[in-house]
Amino acid sequence: MAILYAADPSEADQWLGSIREIDPALIFRHWPDYGPAEEIDFIIVSGHLPGDLSAFTHVRGIQSTWAGVNHLMQGGGLPAGVPLARMVDDGLTVSMSEYMVFHVLDRLRQGKALRQAQREHVWADHPVPVEQRPTIGIMGLGTLGQDAARQLLPLGLTLRGWSRTAKQVDGVESFAGLDALPAFLGGCDILICLLPLTPETTGILNRRLFDLLPKHACLINAARGAHLVEEDLLAVLDSGHLDHAVLDVFRTEPLPAGHPFWAHPKITITPHIAAITRPGTGAALIVENYRRATAGERLQNQVDRAQGY
Amino acid sequence: MAILYAADPSEADQWLGSIREIDPALIFRHWPDYGPAEEIDFIIVSGHLPGDLSAFTHVRGIQSTWAGVNHLMQGGGLPAGVPLARMVDDGLTVSMSEYMVFHVLDRLRQGKALRQAQREHVWADHPVPVEQRPTIGIMGLGTLGQDAARQLLPLGLTLRGWSRTAKQVDGVESFAGLDALPAFLGGCDILICLLPLTPETTGILNRRLFDLLPKHACLINAARGAHLVEEDLLAVLDSGHLDHAVLDVFRTEPLPAGHPFWAHPKITITPHIAAITRPGTGAALIVENYRRATAGERLQNQVDRAQGY
Ligand SMILES: NC(=O)c1ccc[n+]([C@@H]2O[C@H](COP(=O)([O-])OP(=O)(O)OC[C@H]3O[C@@H](n4cnc5c(N)ncnc54)[C@H](OP(=O)(O)O)[C@@H]3O)[C@@H](O)[C@H]2O)c1
Ligand SMILES: NC(=O)c1ccc[n+]([C@@H]2O[C@H](COP(=O)([O-])OP(=O)(O)OC[C@H]3O[C@@H](n4cnc5c(N)ncnc54)[C@H](OP(=O)(O)O)[C@@H]3O)[C@@H](O)[C@H]2O)c1
Repeated sequence: MAILYAADPSEADQWLGSIREIDPALIFRHWPDYGPAEEIDFIIVSGHLPGDLSAFTHVRGIQSTWAGVNHLMQGGGLPAGVPLARMVDDGLTVSMSEYMVFHVLDRLRQGKALRQAQREHVWADHPVPVEQRPTIGIMGLGTLGQDAARQLLPLGLTLRGWSRTAKQVDGVESFAGLDALPAFLGGCDILICLLPLTPETTGILNRRLFDLLPKHACLINAARGAHLVEEDLLAVLDSGHLDHAVLDVFRTEPLPAGHPFWAHPKITITPHIAAITRPGTGAALIVENYRRATAGERLQNQVDRAQGY
Repeated sequence: MAILYAADPSEADQWLGSIREIDPALIFRHWPDYGPAEEIDFIIVSGHLPGDLSAFTHVRGIQSTWAGVNHLMQGGGLPAGVPLARMVDDGLTVSMSEYMVFHVLDRLRQGKALRQAQREHVWADHPVPVEQRPTIGIMGLGTLGQDAARQLLPLGLTLRGWSRTAKQVDGVESFAGLDALPAFLGGCDILICLLPLTPETTGILNRRLFDLLPKHACLINAARGAHLVEEDLLAVLDSGHLDHAVLDVFRTEPLPAGHPFWAHPKITITPHIAAITRPGTGAALIVENYRRATAGERLQNQVDRAQGY
């Protein structure tokens, strides 16, 4: 039997190299010339399906190299009933938390205003008292949201999180479920979105939600572009209700030329680089999940296909 | 007897308010209408002397509200033999370390390149592998340098420090004295200066020192403007030897209009706001040092006037 590598071709050398370092005996096929479909018992994909996988009837497991698997579950190209695992990788988690600490500090330390002052050759020495620390609210207190909270706490910030089920995380006030969303939002000076994209969370960052944030709040979205209703964000930035948004993900990526976000003075764009999976550390998860899949065990980080994440 | 407040008049309300909350019985005079000089037994100053203080013959101690006391020791206006204390304040220390973490992250996360890409409407998704972590070298491993090291360590960076005497700080390789300076510099991808300004350290950030740094190194100076030979920095930035400099302090402050630093694409200017003393927490040190001075005890954070810091 063989593993089908159907993930990003430009990353094949890195992934297969790292996997072979762990287990040199594994046999690989490559999309689209994979030979007899019934010889494939495991498939590695990225964030999108390369094509219809429903013909792979002998597959025991599918592993994504991405943390977010929303695209894979759209369009019905997954073989029915086959366990799907998402990527959870220390490198990715560290990188995402660092992104959050950086962009929160950029706000705390008035990065934008000071860069503007330098462009205008103005000595703008109005320091912000250390006492004025914002409250940060994190939507999605899973692997990434919890780690971000842990890394933000030492900055002396007040932290709260929102998730489907209540959470116990040191120093983080937990809000759970839709009913608790207004109370959660009411205290968020900086709102971070680290939700998975599911039917429930699509478009959740919309006008109604923004209206529940305090005036001058700031948004950081590094989850998925489709969480955000882009027109609604533009409206609340332009009305002055929200101060600024930092966006790593977009409805269409790369962000199209001429999109109003590019030149917006209240939007910071990063090109989906908040967190990148590292083959070096992520390969171990793939090898372990291949073993589990062929042994009929539950995969690590297996996606609940009914729940969508 | 009375305390003479001869520090920044615009901060008088804050400082005296905070001090009175601790000890409402203390009596204050204000510069320049302080009444009989022999009634003054303690003087509070900022970073500069308001005038000649040598006539205050009954003074038992002088407290600066600044961490750096270099200006106070120039020009001979201090009464001879009177103990001088500098400010050490948690708020100041936290703020300085935060400044360092922010500017190191701005480099790690390619803040400058990504802002430039957004201005040009370019989707620049070339992530930097998490593995490529720079080595940070800190000149001055005192109160501020040691705390900065502690806050930078969790970012997964390699840290080294340089000081007059050898130091034992967890996770920080110690280099001591002028002889060790070349070895120290040779491994610094980012060089942070947190030295006090003394005759030995004036102009220490010069061409000879920059030449000992690896190519593409970056400088962060938040100590004093006179540590830096400004022309030498411009030369090594323009030659491409150094990549970037973040400067909080300058030979002349505010930085004069027309100074070449303002518009330099490889220089980030912040207006001496890296760390600000907070009267709320700093007042306790002043009250304690007043008690010590009048009791004839050694002051907290007393400056070694021979050594200059
Ligand atoms: N920009 C990037 O570079 C990048 C990189 C990696 C990942 N991401 C995105 O980040 C997302 C989160 O990743 P993760 O590893 O932290 O996921 P995770 O561990 O599955 O955590 C998801 C969190 O969201 C909560 N949640 C899900 N649906 C919800 C709902 N309807 N209402 C309230 N809370 C809900 C979950 O609540 P429960 O705990 O109660 O289930 C959980 O706390 C990924 O799905 C991906 O889209 C982006
Ligand atoms: N930008 C701002 O907002 C701001 C705010 C506050 C302070 N500062 C500046 O930061 C400076 C440092 O403050 P601090 O509280 O950390 O001072 P500190 O506790 O006195 O530490 C000074 C450090 O520098 C080392 N040093 C002094 N002279 C040296 C020399 N000739 N060669 C090598 N090392 C030498 C000392 O070595 P030893 O330990 O061996 O004595 C010590 O490690 C202040 O003096 C001030 O100028 C700037």
